[in-house]
Amino acid sequence: MSTIRAWAAPAAGAPLEPFTYTTGPLGADEVEIAVDYCGLCHSDLSMRDNEWGRTTYPFVPGHEIVGRIVACGAAVKGREVGQRVGLGWFSGSCQYCHSCLRGDQHLCGSSQETIVGRHGGFAERVRSHWLWVTPLPESLASEACGPLFCGGITVFNPILLAGVKPTDRVGVVGIGGLGHLAIQFLRRWGCEVTAFTSSEAKRDEAMALGAHQVVPSNDKSAIKRWAGYFDFILVTVNVALEWPAFTAALAPRGRLHFVGAVLEPIQLPAFSLIGGQKSVGGSPVGSPATVETMLGFCARHAIAPQIEVFPMSRVNDALAHLAAGKARYRVVLKADFD
Amino acid sequence: MSTIRAWAAPAAGAPLEPFTYTTGPLGADEVEIAVDYCGLCHSDLSMRDNEWGRTTYPFVPGHEIVGRIVACGAAVKGREVGQRVGLGWFSGSCQYCHSCLRGDQHLCGSSQETIVGRHGGFAERVRSHWLWVTPLPESLASEACGPLFCGGITVFNPILLAGVKPTDRVGVVGIGGLGHLAIQFLRRWGCEVTAFTSSEAKRDEAMALGAHQVVPSNDKSAIKRWAGYFDFILVTVNVALEWPAFTAALAPRGRLHFVGAVLEPIQLPAFSLIGGQKSVGGSPVGSPATVETMLGFCARHAIAPQIEVFPMSRVNDALAHLAAGKARYRVVLKADFD
Repeated sequence: MSTIRAWAAPAAGAPLEPFTYTTGPLGADEVEIAVDYCGLCHSDLSMRDNEWGRTTYPFVPGHEIVGRIVACGAAVKGREVGQRVGLGWFSGSCQYCHSCLRGDQHLCGSSQETIVGRHGGFAERVRSHWLWVTPLPESLASEACGPLFCGGITVFNPILLAGVKPTDRVGVVGIGGLGHLAIQFLRRWGCEVTAFTSSEAKRDEAMALGAHQVVPSNDKSAIKRWAGYFDFILVTVNVALEWPAFTAALAPRGRLHFVGAVLEPIQLPAFSLIGGQKSVGGSPVGSPATVETMLGFCARHAIAPQIEVFPMSRVNDALAHLAAGKARYRVVLKADFD
Repeated sequence: MSTIRAWAAPAAGAPLEPFTYTTGPLGADEVEIAVDYCGLCHSDLSMRDNEWGRTTYPFVPGHEIVGRIVACGAAVKGREVGQRVGLGWFSGSCQYCHSCLRGDQHLCGSSQETIVGRHGGFAERVRSHWLWVTPLPESLASEACGPLFCGGITVFNPILLAGVKPTDRVGVVGIGGLGHLAIQFLRRWGCEVTAFTSSEAKRDEAMALGAHQVVPSNDKSAIKRWAGYFDFILVTVNVALEWPAFTAALAPRGRLHFVGAVLEPIQLPAFSLIGGQKSVGGSPVGSPATVETMLGFCARHAIAPQIEVFPMSRVNDALAHLAAGKARYRVVLKADFD
């Protein structure tokens, strides 16, 4: 039994308020983490407002968690009390389905999501299956690691998945919490990187992050000038754009990849894929092994999100800042319960 | 100078009639083929009727050609008079663009198509750049090889491209000229093969061709029972189906691949790809190297299209037979000019 202080929304759209809940005994496979920092992701907003119809209230958001292990269940493997760790969107998976067995635990059909049907990381402590709790490389700062566990892995996973090569010409659509990390990853990957943004104000920042050039994502004729150019385009926005212009911008064998939850169906003529042998894909976060790989890459290349830190007690200000599109580029909450 | 007898449509939708045209001197890179057989592909019908707005008249169809080389230009490489060869959709490519240089000549941006802006294989002779003229393995019968050069390579190429493994569960949507070859390829590839057809009459034939089971392609609820099952689904039809039901039928990491020119845009929610890390792709025929690989595979596994042979002088009957959906499964014309 353990009592945990947290911040929770009592109902859809309501401000978060102090909330305390009691947990049962720690599961044999579980670790308990004392939260130091928790990133704020757009999914936390969507879940708070029950946009996906999956939220239960009171709702404790937070799935970009960094902290220290304070307790381990009897069957925990390879994790120990005192380790500095991160935890992201998933906090459990079955371990025996085909996807789990082959290392695609993020595709497990009966996974546990950190903020779905349980309480997340806007709290003093949080629990997870040990498999999803990943130790942090020493050189990475705690306050900057949280966003890697959702925003970061979401854009890193497709780079590996699509077999992007350092010789590729790549595009990143949307320069926000996800996109600003994607630009950094792909620049250090060795690629020629083009940023697509609808915000003229972000042009210089995209270049500073590592883009070689910037193209307006809402200007169909500007995109048309890049016809046949890109080997890989990563879409991080969640609004509908002119997708046929983007498939036209792909080189032969090019791949358009979605990680943003665009709600409007993507419409594509089969012809736009057939002639140039192109494809369109999507992916969610990534497996624990890919998280480890990403953290090693970040440590070696000094990649980190650009963050704005708010004390967790100002969580409602932080949510409003994000909702207003003002985050540059990821908001991180610092736990301040004591 | 050479005079060639052929069959041509004088205008969109008109019956084919005897037609003679005169060619200039043979190009240095060209070979001339005496046509023995020519397959009849649905694209010949679409082009005859100018459905794609690319047809010039008089129009000589035919791009599944089998014959013997009767003349070689001065710069022809690796081809010689007397060789038994095949020729498909493409009959020229630039050889110096990036796609050509890396062996993707079928993705060349300035390729020459056998029946676009020039005359095709419903003729006594036809010319092509030597690169697109592929010698036939001895064990393959001339009359059965033509359909491999368009229908066959169109479904063989994506199997290689998508990295389909013998352990995969695969689906073939549409059991016609393309699909009946895809079933054979994938069965010999070692896969578990499911045929999707809207024709109850084709069920037994699909099984005889090598399918392990048959699912009605127009029954959404039947398809739903296969949710999460397939590693690869190849779509050979050119009509719109319930695509979200097919992406739902994909296993994690599954790929839905289009080779049929479905004119209505494919509509897919991004969510349907993201969660299971799925993708949707397309491709046209294949490169000359892939054609060689396919022919070797056909020879080793005794794979051949099921054909109905018409004398070329009955070409209009053959076109009507195809247009009526009666072909089982590929119509081949036997040249009978003499």
